[in-house]
Amino acid sequence: MALIVQKYGGTSVGSIERIEAVAEKIIGFREKGDDVVVVVSAMSGETNRLTALALNVMEQPTPREMDVLLATGEQVTIALLCMALIKRGCGARSFTGGQVRILTDESHTKARIREIDSNLILTQLEKGDVVVVAGFQGVDEYGNITTLGRGGSDTTAVALAVALSAAECQIYTDVKGVYTTDPRVVQDARLLKSITFEEMLELASLGAKVLQIRSVEFAGKYKVPLRVLSTFEEGEGTLISLEEEIDMEDPAIAGIAFERDEAKLTVAGVPDVPGIAYTVIGPVSDAGIEVDVIVQNAGVEGTNDITFTVKRAESDEAKKILDKIAKSIDAREVVLDKKVCKVSLVGVGMRSHAGIASRMFKALADENINIQIITTSEIKISVVIDEKYLELAVRALHSAFELGDPDYGKNPNQA
Amino acid sequence: MALIVQKYGGTSVGSIERIEAVAEKIIGFREKGDDVVVVVSAMSGETNRLTALALNVMEQPTPREMDVLLATGEQVTIALLCMALIKRGCGARSFTGGQVRILTDESHTKARIREIDSNLILTQLEKGDVVVVAGFQGVDEYGNITTLGRGGSDTTAVALAVALSAAECQIYTDVKGVYTTDPRVVQDARLLKSITFEEMLELASLGAKVLQIRSVEFAGKYKVPLRVLSTFEEGEGTLISLEEEIDMEDPAIAGIAFERDEAKLTVAGVPDVPGIAYTVIGPVSDAGIEVDVIVQNAGVEGTNDITFTVKRAESDEAKKILDKIAKSIDAREVVLDKKVCKVSLVGVGMRSHAGIASRMFKALADENINIQIITTSEIKISVVIDEKYLELAVRALHSAFELGDPDYGKNPNQA
Repeated sequence: MALIVQKYGGTSVGSIERIEAVAEKIIGFREKGDDVVVVVSAMSGETNRLTALALNVMEQPTPREMDVLLATGEQVTIALLCMALIKRGCGARSFTGGQVRILTDESHTKARIREIDSNLILTQLEKGDVVVVAGFQGVDEYGNITTLGRGGSDTTAVALAVALSAAECQIYTDVKGVYTTDPRVVQDARLLKSITFEEMLELASLGAKVLQIRSVEFAGKYKVPLRVLSTFEEGEGTLISLEEEIDMEDPAIAGIAFERDEAKLTVAGVPDVPGIAYTVIGPVSDAGIEVDVIVQNAGVEGTNDITFTVKRAESDEAKKILDKIAKSIDAREVVLDKKVCKVSLVGVGMRSHAGIASRMFKALADENINIQIITTSEIKISVVIDEKYLELAVRALHSAFELGDPDYGKNPNQA
Repeated sequence: MALIVQKYGGTSVGSIERIEAVAEKIIGFREKGDDVVVVVSAMSGETNRLTALALNVMEQPTPREMDVLLATGEQVTIALLCMALIKRGCGARSFTGGQVRILTDESHTKARIREIDSNLILTQLEKGDVVVVAGFQGVDEYGNITTLGRGGSDTTAVALAVALSAAECQIYTDVKGVYTTDPRVVQDARLLKSITFEEMLELASLGAKVLQIRSVEFAGKYKVPLRVLSTFEEGEGTLISLEEEIDMEDPAIAGIAFERDEAKLTVAGVPDVPGIAYTVIGPVSDAGIEVDVIVQNAGVEGTNDITFTVKRAESDEAKKILDKIAKSIDAREVVLDKKVCKVSLVGVGMRSHAGIASRMFKALADENINIQIITTSEIKISVVIDEKYLELAVRALHSAFELGDPDYGKNPNQA
């Protein structure tokens, strides 16, 4: 008997059959005695259909009207899911973002939630109904419809969980949870039972995209236990919780993230003067290119090299910008290497366990993998290496830090 | 410079191209200095698509959730129309039924409007914007989304015109207005410049379906001038107004309505006792069959015949019910004639012009058309005749009452 908030994404409610399956799942929780608040996204494809309509009218749709348009997507899903629940004899009631007063600021298409009136939902739960809320949307103080931007439904779910002091916020997706690394690369990748918010943030931003970063930050800030689990398969998924709740005996490393399609740019022989890093990197950022790992090595002769990585698709544009700058600051040359990737070890345990870095470098050296760049943070060590070694490096590290599933291969039903 | 409310139906906004054309039309009124409030329906086909989704989930969708679902249709249109206006430099702002507080009762899928808060709209008009409101929908006092049922967008438009004291409520459709009769039957049918609410009610209910009856009643009750006109062609359309505003020199007859696919049922030789009409007709009505023209002729020998018409598609079911009743009341027989139709003359002028009926009967007699049933009301005379004479009868009456367009054939652009 607990109050739980569940969120089902577009794929989970992508057809009438899937909506019916979600209804069955919800009823399972009701039968265990839980109070359930459900947040749903638009059926997969619907948001794209609506966006295409708008783009047919104008190239840059008016944000306020875009929100009015897109908000219909989730509204369709809440109605259909309630029907599926009611058909099965389970009381249910749908609410748009506006109806439960998910109050946001006025930033159309990327609004931020300010507060939620939980009374209406609590009253409805007391009547024994499942409450189904449209994700991704709210209203500003003037009653205008707003939307929360990418991953907005996750944010709605977490915000509702906070407002309702829910025991848990469950995010249903098409994966079983968070793994030590991508199971497509390492066969015995292990499903993590739990992970800290900080680790999740690093893993998510490094490519293990299961949850929207914003909702993880939000849940972490308000200390709402967040669980990622599969809509389509049974299982407990992965619990994302506070550091203190994680068993200190857990391994130091939570997982290995990696990013393909990186490119490395080196501006060689730049003058060693204050502000030079900004002179070089500023114009690249200003052009809307996301700059990732940055290292600067002071050389011996009064000049140095600045190296950083960008997405491969944006690397040619970055190179052009840098060529101009190089000329103006009299740098020696700009070198673009499109064949690199990034591999990162993530774990809050790094803080208390010494020697993680050297163990990492040794594992890579044992495989003759040359490290081009190293960067570290409190809970993460990243290396940039030749992309051809990506899988080899991930597997070597996964094995070196004993992250593998000890039961791998024993259970034929295992993912 | 006037405040006008315009309503565009599903066909008028059925594609992006049509929405753009509607935007152009609205801008034309703005440029003349009018304040414009626009009510739109869902894009044609959208309501059917949504209904199909719901029916895939459950045979009899929960009314409350059906309303949540269907209300998205109009919400999509208001957003797209506003974008089309804004792209053309015309300020515009969309509102759902709930956002402008179209307060209804709680009868989901067939709600009635109780009141409208006109302040929000008036404030927006003062800013110079076109206000675009989703038709067909409202909210009840608890904030639940309701819909107004068939023709609901017409009702929204009229209700807004009443609440805003609009100078006129314009209903844009795919016809040029109201004709003296169906132009497909009578080539020189004349587009009426004006017609009274009462006449419009009779014409609408008799088959000339241009406007929903409910919205005409509503407009008549609150004395809002209503105009029916074409989205796709230029023209003044037909003004529906109060009787006193109609020129007394106008012809006595406004138009000729007719109904095909009627069937006539006669229960012959029923006992001539009080309440017998109810005994016979009650069970037919109770079965949900709409009974139209009813006549009862007392015979000479203490028995009489009761005759009435129903829709042909429901006549077999009605016959079955009547056969049982006939047995129980010892009537002689039940006769079903599936080959009848109804033709009606409509006009408030009947009240002041004598001899309309006899002129009608003579016109039919001149064509050797046998009248099977006659019924009259203050502003209407209906006859039931053999269906094979339908077109002949309508043309004969149209000519006898000189309803034809005197300019017919002179203007090549005329409909």
